[in-house]
Amino acid sequence: MDMRTDKASSTRDASDFVHEIRVTWGDCDPATIVYSARVPWFALDAIHAWWEHHLDNCGWYHLAMDRNTGTPFVHMSMDFTAPITPRHRLECAVRLTGLGDSSIEFQVTGNQDGVQCFTGRFVCVFVVVDKFIKQKVPQDIRQIVEPLLQEART
Amino acid sequence: MDMRTDKASSTRDASDFVHEIRVTWGDCDPATIVYSARVPWFALDAIHAWWEHHLDNCGWYHLAMDRNTGTPFVHMSMDFTAPITPRHRLECAVRLTGLGDSSIEFQVTGNQDGVQCFTGRFVCVFVVVDKFIKQKVPQDIRQIVEPLLQEART
Amino acid sequence: MDMRTDKASSTRDASDFVHEIRVTWGDCDPATIVYSARVPWFALDAIHAWWEHHLDNCGWYHLAMDRNTGTPFVHMSMDFTAPITPRHRLECAVRLTGLGDSSIEFQVTGNQDGVQCFTGRFVCVFVVVDKFIKQKVPQDIRQIVEPLLQEART
Amino acid sequence: MDMRTDKASSTRDASDFVHEIRVTWGDCDPATIVYSARVPWFALDAIHAWWEHHLDNCGWYHLAMDRNTGTPFVHMSMDFTAPITPRHRLECAVRLTGLGDSSIEFQVTGNQDGVQCFTGRFVCVFVVVDKFIKQKVPQDIRQIVEPLLQEART
Repeated sequence: MDMRTDKASSTRDASDFVHEIRVTWGDCDPATIVYSARVPWFALDAIHAWWEHHLDNCGWYHLAMDRNTGTPFVHMSMDFTAPITPRHRLECAVRLTGLGDSSIEFQVTGNQDGVQCFTGRFVCVFVVVDKFIKQKVPQDIRQIVEPLLQEART
Repeated sequence: MDMRTDKASSTRDASDFVHEIRVTWGDCDPATIVYSARVPWFALDAIHAWWEHHLDNCGWYHLAMDRNTGTPFVHMSMDFTAPITPRHRLECAVRLTGLGDSSIEFQVTGNQDGVQCFTGRFVCVFVVVDKFIKQKVPQDIRQIVEPLLQEART
Repeated sequence: MDMRTDKASSTRDASDFVHEIRVTWGDCDPATIVYSARVPWFALDAIHAWWEHHLDNCGWYHLAMDRNTGTPFVHMSMDFTAPITPRHRLECAVRLTGLGDSSIEFQVTGNQDGVQCFTGRFVCVFVVVDKFIKQKVPQDIRQIVEPLLQEART
Repeated sequence: MDMRTDKASSTRDASDFVHEIRVTWGDCDPATIVYSARVPWFALDAIHAWWEHHLDNCGWYHLAMDRNTGTPFVHMSMDFTAPITPRHRLECAVRLTGLGDSSIEFQVTGNQDGVQCFTGRFVCVFVVVDKFIKQKVPQDIRQIVEPLLQEART
């Protein structure tokens, strides 16, 4: 099976936020594809870009330093469906798929040249950074992100 | 809830292969704990050490370069249950939990100072590296690892 | 001394190639600034972007895979003059400062919000990748990059 | 020239502190050797291990969190003399080569299988972490490290 030809398998849709990653030489291993442990890092970069996009350039650093608010990950699961290389930009589509009392859930799907390379589910919990205790989703953040809730792609 | 006090939660057992990781400053983010995207990398380092231990120092590099055999990851899922810091070594227990026709499955559990920090499930598929096509688990490798199969910790 | 106010210290000039880096949370350490060992990685990303820009999207991966040509680093030296944070994009100006028979030399200067954060000198040698032996700068590459030679900033 | 055979070139001596690094698959790039930007990270890991060794397991994290003391890097220069692979452990010899009023200087030399792979010079400045201003080398630290001063290897 050539893992790169089934272009129909991509499940991204036009309304998704897409973060483009410039895959480079140093991301690849001697098998000449991106090292598996690098891919979750890419997915988190994409989720971070989603936050910056929706919170007016306010990312995890700003949330922590200026508001003492953090969103550490409590769960991630990923399926790797095609190798990633520096031949094309990696387009990571981020979808908000859950919003609980203190938790938030994302689906991230990575595509290169029309081929789906990975899909993953990521769950974060809101915390007070300097105490590392759970907090509710801050009200102003809830107002911004709640309208963005979507079904998970299947 | 103080996420670091429930030492009874650790599910590692004495027969597990344990790989120790020296967590450092550069692994941590401004929340003063290890950055979430670094943890899958640690888990893969532990799985790699498991291979080296059981295959007489032959790791992924040797398998690829000397035998044209690779074991790319097709799935990973992780639950993060306590923050990781440089205060203690991170003990990663690796357990072989599945062996299919061409696939292999591991459970990795990370502990620091008696507290379980993460647990994860990882599935790899054997491939011919230069063609990136699936292959059966090589017979000599099957003979070495099959006796190591264990139940997943729950 | 406030290391961030001397905006006059920036030595970048308008003709430089500038690669923008999105500094994130995971790049920072508990001192809330980018970890020192991450900065050379940024500089190499910038040099790589310079190659892609001038060689029509052909970077180190393409050079190695399609032309068996590599440019491993034989020297780097860097001075770190101000901390880097995710508050601003990091603008890395790349200047070609030397071209020998088989070597190539770059100066990379990083700026954030008008403040110079680092400057560095990097020397690479052209090699035949699969033999790891030195080669002359390929003629077509020399023709493209030779006109780009500039004085080093001081 | 085969860059790996000149074993006489190693300049490490028996009194050096040596930190061993387990080079892995994910550290390597498609040229099947360690990616250049990864090597400064290794060198910093070795310097960090030197601190832990001499300060009774107190590393950069402990210094920052418990004493509000940091030692950010202000300069690094490295020469890369042979490729690094996962075939052997990387032995990083760390030597204290300078101690100023507020600065400290190290030489790090990396060897694999008797071949010198890199040598580098690293300068750090003592700072008060939460203000990021220079401080003198704390007296108790000076007392521990001053006797360790050595000439740089040439």
